[in-house]
Amino acid sequence: MEKVFFVICDGLGDRPIEKFGRKTPLEAADTPNLDKLARKGISGMLHPVDIGVRPGSDVAHLSLFGYNLKTDYTGRGPFEAAGIGMDARPGDICLRVNAATVNKDSVVIDRRAGRIDDTSEISDLLDGTVIEGIRICLKPGTGHRMVLVMRGKNLDAAIADVDPHSVGIKVKACKAVKNNKKAKRTARVLQKFLTYAHKKLLVLDSNKERKRLGKFEANYLLSRGAGVYPNLPSFEEKYGLKAVCVAGAGLYKGIGRLLGMDVVEVEGATGKADSNIAAKVRKAISLKSKYDFFFIHFKGTDILGEDGDCEGKKQFIEKIDAALKPLVNMKDILLVATADHSTPCSLKAHSADDVPVVIASPRVRDDDVEKFGERACAHGRLGAIRGKHLMPIIIDLLGMAKLVGA
Amino acid sequence: MEKVFFVICDGLGDRPIEKFGRKTPLEAADTPNLDKLARKGISGMLHPVDIGVRPGSDVAHLSLFGYNLKTDYTGRGPFEAAGIGMDARPGDICLRVNAATVNKDSVVIDRRAGRIDDTSEISDLLDGTVIEGIRICLKPGTGHRMVLVMRGKNLDAAIADVDPHSVGIKVKACKAVKNNKKAKRTARVLQKFLTYAHKKLLVLDSNKERKRLGKFEANYLLSRGAGVYPNLPSFEEKYGLKAVCVAGAGLYKGIGRLLGMDVVEVEGATGKADSNIAAKVRKAISLKSKYDFFFIHFKGTDILGEDGDCEGKKQFIEKIDAALKPLVNMKDILLVATADHSTPCSLKAHSADDVPVVIASPRVRDDDVEKFGERACAHGRLGAIRGKHLMPIIIDLLGMAKLVGA
Repeated sequence: MEKVFFVICDGLGDRPIEKFGRKTPLEAADTPNLDKLARKGISGMLHPVDIGVRPGSDVAHLSLFGYNLKTDYTGRGPFEAAGIGMDARPGDICLRVNAATVNKDSVVIDRRAGRIDDTSEISDLLDGTVIEGIRICLKPGTGHRMVLVMRGKNLDAAIADVDPHSVGIKVKACKAVKNNKKAKRTARVLQKFLTYAHKKLLVLDSNKERKRLGKFEANYLLSRGAGVYPNLPSFEEKYGLKAVCVAGAGLYKGIGRLLGMDVVEVEGATGKADSNIAAKVRKAISLKSKYDFFFIHFKGTDILGEDGDCEGKKQFIEKIDAALKPLVNMKDILLVATADHSTPCSLKAHSADDVPVVIASPRVRDDDVEKFGERACAHGRLGAIRGKHLMPIIIDLLGMAKLVGA
Repeated sequence: MEKVFFVICDGLGDRPIEKFGRKTPLEAADTPNLDKLARKGISGMLHPVDIGVRPGSDVAHLSLFGYNLKTDYTGRGPFEAAGIGMDARPGDICLRVNAATVNKDSVVIDRRAGRIDDTSEISDLLDGTVIEGIRICLKPGTGHRMVLVMRGKNLDAAIADVDPHSVGIKVKACKAVKNNKKAKRTARVLQKFLTYAHKKLLVLDSNKERKRLGKFEANYLLSRGAGVYPNLPSFEEKYGLKAVCVAGAGLYKGIGRLLGMDVVEVEGATGKADSNIAAKVRKAISLKSKYDFFFIHFKGTDILGEDGDCEGKKQFIEKIDAALKPLVNMKDILLVATADHSTPCSLKAHSADDVPVVIASPRVRDDDVEKFGERACAHGRLGAIRGKHLMPIIIDLLGMAKLVGA
């Protein structure tokens, strides 16, 4: 059975760019290895969720891994908690938190506290607070990002974001979005904690120092994306494949952990455009004998798309292409390359546009697509598939699909 | 945000015609502007409802506008009522009615009373009749067409057509199609009304005069298509786009009204093959600053398909092409051209054949389709979509799609 190398270039898909002669960054990039992969494999276009659906990265990945979005997706929080390796358990309420700056009227001045680069002092101060019998854990993520986990009885994740998602307006009160006792209790406890945290942060020495230096103080915790930590079947239980996640950015490590994959650290894998992605590919290859399935995630394409940096996105795609060379040249593997969604540089955000996908293996019915790109892959024999179709196709190519009927 | 011009050529799709060298009327027509649109945009084939489903125009339009056919489509009657601007309200039972001719044995002699051109005398005679506490409103449509609305308590639209849909057989008794009291009561009241109407029409002076002139008398009301007037979210509520309907034929104005669109009248817009369709396009363009979404409907293609007039259909398509020239040449709009279904000239009726669709905007991933036609668009990058996908694609291209997940 071939080992599966499953490469996700985050936000790879794009729209025509005038300065590239209406090519997309992928079409404009010089990608000899991805093109070779297209020639070897079967290509198509993939709607991560469905036609016209604009997915977040968390939902898109769950869809690509064949999980049921209706039952298995509970919100962003659990992915963030898993992403930083927090000890979250099924039933815990998980939230993404920004260390932020508010003025004396609780108006948000900066949603990222001047992009503060370390929040471990804040988490040390507040982690483990207990309110109404609920234990609140707070851990630092990268930069201004933190994760909050509430553990205890009678909790419900149906609470609204406190983060107003823009500056110049007041912090929202934490409210239940469902009219039930558990949600109301959860909102009340969280509100008490956020108010308590605000008081403690206002008098923190480091905040006084930041103020003196003219920097934004990290004096408020803006929470959002509450979700209950789900109890998912692991990827291995679902597919019988021992899987490893090779990712730089927290969310994608979180997806790997949520699905029970081993998550390996790679030096220089930053989850940003400067990431040493070749090292990630080498790491995966070095583990070839130990796993059946390698989830390799590259984040730079999405970040550069959100920055509207089409030239940078094109260059990052060329860097991906070079990094994939050893995989493309391996004969005995099943290699998939695709994206979780499009992030058009002109939109600077996710879109619902479909993304190219190629599957190469010795067994696959290859087609006559010669280039890996949005327009080229539309002519591929795989046609227009949905994210949920990808894993079943792979499992069938591995000869592991269950027979339906007899 | 681009303004959306959404052009529906009713029944545009067709099948090969021998005298056109097995081209369809669209393929045989000279359509420089639609072809230019195909070059500018992304093309594909659209199944109005689903593969193999042969839709009526009402259902097809609801599907194209992204409404849920299972919950939002209640029958043809409400569309007809809305089409002639009747004061129908959610809960009313609406029916399409033909003024028709029966002989003394209640056998249908002519389903359209010799295509009588005005039924206002009939509606004046019978409108406002009250039976068992149910108020029955009757209003004239075009020609032999009328609309009947029943208002009152304990009604159910689950009643069968009285119209036998062919001549030489007896009018059907009005029967409930569900075994419930409300449906039985509705059928009973309607039957009483139709019998009462028959008696009154038999002695109408104008019918005596028609008889004397050897014309078919308008002596019976053939009802069909009963449906409860639905309570739909408006198009603007659903999509955040202020919409206007530019149509000639009643049904399509009705669709516009049902969806809360403004409906504008255009001089010379007849809803037939002689319609001044260029004036409709000019009218839409003149309103460009006032609306976000322009539903422009051309009926002639469907009528000529139902007449089996392939030469006429081809010429009408050329007329559409010329009328669309100013829209095709506008750079800052999102222009969609498609059909609600196929009406093959060889079939003289709707078919389930898919229809070509093209979407052009500065943002769209254009493809290499160079002609707007059934075979050419099948090579387009949009692939094979369903009617329900069209609005989500448009909303995403406008940058207005909600993110699913985070």
